[in-house]
Amino acid sequence: MPLADARARLRDALDGEGRAGRAFGTFLTWLIVASAVVVALETVPELPALLASLLSQAEILIVAVFTLEYGARLFAAERPWRYAISFWGIVDLLAILPALLLLAPDWAVLRVLRLLRLLRILKLFRADRALARLARALHSCRGDLAVFGFIALCMTYLAAVGIYHFESAAQPDAFGSIPESLWWAIATLTTVGYGDVYPITTGGQIFTACILVVGLGVVAVPAGLVTAALLTEFQGDNENTSRGDQE
Amino acid sequence: MPLADARARLRDALDGEGRAGRAFGTFLTWLIVASAVVVALETVPELPALLASLLSQAEILIVAVFTLEYGARLFAAERPWRYAISFWGIVDLLAILPALLLLAPDWAVLRVLRLLRLLRILKLFRADRALARLARALHSCRGDLAVFGFIALCMTYLAAVGIYHFESAAQPDAFGSIPESLWWAIATLTTVGYGDVYPITTGGQIFTACILVVGLGVVAVPAGLVTAALLTEFQGDNENTSRGDQE
Amino acid sequence: MPLADARARLRDALDGEGRAGRAFGTFLTWLIVASAVVVALETVPELPALLASLLSQAEILIVAVFTLEYGARLFAAERPWRYAISFWGIVDLLAILPALLLLAPDWAVLRVLRLLRLLRILKLFRADRALARLARALHSCRGDLAVFGFIALCMTYLAAVGIYHFESAAQPDAFGSIPESLWWAIATLTTVGYGDVYPITTGGQIFTACILVVGLGVVAVPAGLVTAALLTEFQGDNENTSRGDQE
Amino acid sequence: MPLADARARLRDALDGEGRAGRAFGTFLTWLIVASAVVVALETVPELPALLASLLSQAEILIVAVFTLEYGARLFAAERPWRYAISFWGIVDLLAILPALLLLAPDWAVLRVLRLLRLLRILKLFRADRALARLARALHSCRGDLAVFGFIALCMTYLAAVGIYHFESAAQPDAFGSIPESLWWAIATLTTVGYGDVYPITTGGQIFTACILVVGLGVVAVPAGLVTAALLTEFQGDNENTSRGDQE
Repeated sequence: MPLADARARLRDALDGEGRAGRAFGTFLTWLIVASAVVVALETVPELPALLASLLSQAEILIVAVFTLEYGARLFAAERPWRYAISFWGIVDLLAILPALLLLAPDWAVLRVLRLLRLLRILKLFRADRALARLARALHSCRGDLAVFGFIALCMTYLAAVGIYHFESAAQPDAFGSIPESLWWAIATLTTVGYGDVYPITTGGQIFTACILVVGLGVVAVPAGLVTAALLTEFQGDNENTSRGDQE
Repeated sequence: MPLADARARLRDALDGEGRAGRAFGTFLTWLIVASAVVVALETVPELPALLASLLSQAEILIVAVFTLEYGARLFAAERPWRYAISFWGIVDLLAILPALLLLAPDWAVLRVLRLLRLLRILKLFRADRALARLARALHSCRGDLAVFGFIALCMTYLAAVGIYHFESAAQPDAFGSIPESLWWAIATLTTVGYGDVYPITTGGQIFTACILVVGLGVVAVPAGLVTAALLTEFQGDNENTSRGDQE
Repeated sequence: MPLADARARLRDALDGEGRAGRAFGTFLTWLIVASAVVVALETVPELPALLASLLSQAEILIVAVFTLEYGARLFAAERPWRYAISFWGIVDLLAILPALLLLAPDWAVLRVLRLLRLLRILKLFRADRALARLARALHSCRGDLAVFGFIALCMTYLAAVGIYHFESAAQPDAFGSIPESLWWAIATLTTVGYGDVYPITTGGQIFTACILVVGLGVVAVPAGLVTAALLTEFQGDNENTSRGDQE
Repeated sequence: MPLADARARLRDALDGEGRAGRAFGTFLTWLIVASAVVVALETVPELPALLASLLSQAEILIVAVFTLEYGARLFAAERPWRYAISFWGIVDLLAILPALLLLAPDWAVLRVLRLLRLLRILKLFRADRALARLARALHSCRGDLAVFGFIALCMTYLAAVGIYHFESAAQPDAFGSIPESLWWAIATLTTVGYGDVYPITTGGQIFTACILVVGLGVVAVPAGLVTAALLTEFQGDNENTSRGDQE
């Protein structure tokens, strides 16, 4: 069974176990970060020719490594099909699909596939204990989060309807319809306040003041709920650890 | 007593009990959401004629269903008058009143009744346990909320008075009177900061800095109080559940 | 001792005790609110002549009542001088001083005394239990608040110095000196972001990103500390109440 | 051993122990604050000649005192070299290095050394118990902070990539490349919202709304975690104190 043995060792290495596995995991993390930087830099318009060619060569190299990794995972998996249709298997596949673009750069239709390369960032989240705790915390307060999400949605809608009735006559360009007014409602309730659209009538300004007083609470409470859930998860972890120590 | 029996079963269905009740509740929820979307889309100026006629037909359909629902509730209620003058009875009635507009679209005076259709959104909040918990949480910290609301009001007023004295000479258009300066005070203390009005004198900028240092705390604390009250309610619910399990 | 008795009863009424006291307290609160509204409305430039004369008559009436109240408090106090030099005694005196303006409206030098009328708002804060709890909460976390205030001050200063070195060459008008850059630092770290001054160089934008990552935490933490201290005070009050019930 | 004794007493005084030490510590703190004010004022362009010469004389005086302090610390230290290469030893040295500029003001290359004077502010943080508590609090929640920092980084990157694909065609100046779009992403996710760049296409506005809903939580949670860790440290301190009282 030397083949089965080699597959098991390869599986461990791909899952980040053992010295080789940890080194490979670190290498892969940095490769994904490098990939994100390359994607960003390729969009700069007036790149020097040398840097542009370096970037496309780096891109080829990165895709080659990810293709090798995908092949190795397929080969090492106990049930290859199960891996291929699992969540991470599909992410791994989609992350290398844009390689087609490199072989045939003229297929402009495929340019949208470039975005798929960003899925590689998701791979950074694989197998992280702190992220698992965050997921549990979000799960434990999902009921309250849903209620506040729903209230926030209703409030954004009502804010857009209200400001439309106050401002549409004075500013038909910015508040010409309720869907257009939604953009103002979102920028205001999140307190971003770009300043591209804002009420100018007295009625609209008073309405904005009222909406903000209630709206700020609605925006701030969910963050507090997530924080509290995270802290509860954290204490639970610590208690489990100390109980384990006492036994 | 077949009539009384039918009324009792209709009452249960309208209150969302039983399989038919749950189906009807889900249907009504989506109808209200559809109604909100229709209200928003009708305000878009350059709608295609086909879509515009579709929207008004959808509006007629929605009002018809809500009228039927109101009639059914009146018929099924044990004491129809008590329902008719209850909070939800009035909301249900007001939500269908704008149907008058559809019968006589030329009565421009009645156009304002359109806004009443938004009251239907309130119906989404009927009988939800998570919302009941939010209401209890708000009730338990209403004392502190009132104090902070009062402090925030005083601070907004004082901010408007202060900036008026610093900026009214330099910017008579933006800070021409204290009521006008209130708009700046609200946009600043909520950190929205549209950028349509802002201090330009050195004194006004220093005053803004001082007001912001104190004001941000006043705005952020109420959200924390609501969060804490929500968490206490949540723990109370869990303890009651686990006590119930132990008995 | 009918005089001493009358003074004691007057003292109780002024302190809001008994039925007459509560009625007088409510009346005074609304009078202060009315005074604040009058001060704000008087600054509107194009007031109708009728409203303007009504406002100055209301102002005379309000000052008259406050003068009567001050006299009554002086008369009713057990030690008049002690009241006159106490904090509230001075506030009460300063709140009626601008009456001089009404007797001699041409003394432009005295116009600044008008601001003193706003001190009346402070009177609203007299003898409120919830405000006393807020004061205790602020007192219990004053150490941490001082540390964060100091860190926030240092960070604002360093942000102004840093942006000055990045942007002063590109925008000599907006970032011409470190004191001028402080205005940008305050508007940015509080996330108000008016948009009147913002970095345009790449270095300045990267510096802003770094400052914001650290600065948002520094601004948000004090509000959390005050909230936590308020909740502890709240629980302490409840425990004292229930202990009192058990004994 | 009179010399060793004098060095020990000098060491105590420099470390802020005894009456002389406390006085020297307070003097040094105010000198650092004065130094920060001088650095800021020197950048104002149209200073009166008198004030400008006063400022440079104050600068010479301040550097002289800090040089004396550095020499005294070197002399008093038990192992001078160990102090010289310690963190605070290097800060103390760098804080006086810009004195070279005063001796040879024409060396424009050395002007950048001026920034080093700001390191003096770091000296204010030496030996403060509340800051030590803050450091412990940050240490105890460093795991969660790192996770949220990483998520925030990923989200900022994805926001920049997304808005680039929506807006680069409509606004090639503001969203010309992904690195340029990062500036928008940072100003939006921190809710600063200067208003210099903002989405104008419908797709970009909807994308902004989605990113903000998730992004605000990511920005607000870390502040909550630090607050909770600070409160735990605070309670730990109090319990230790009360245990010490009981023993």
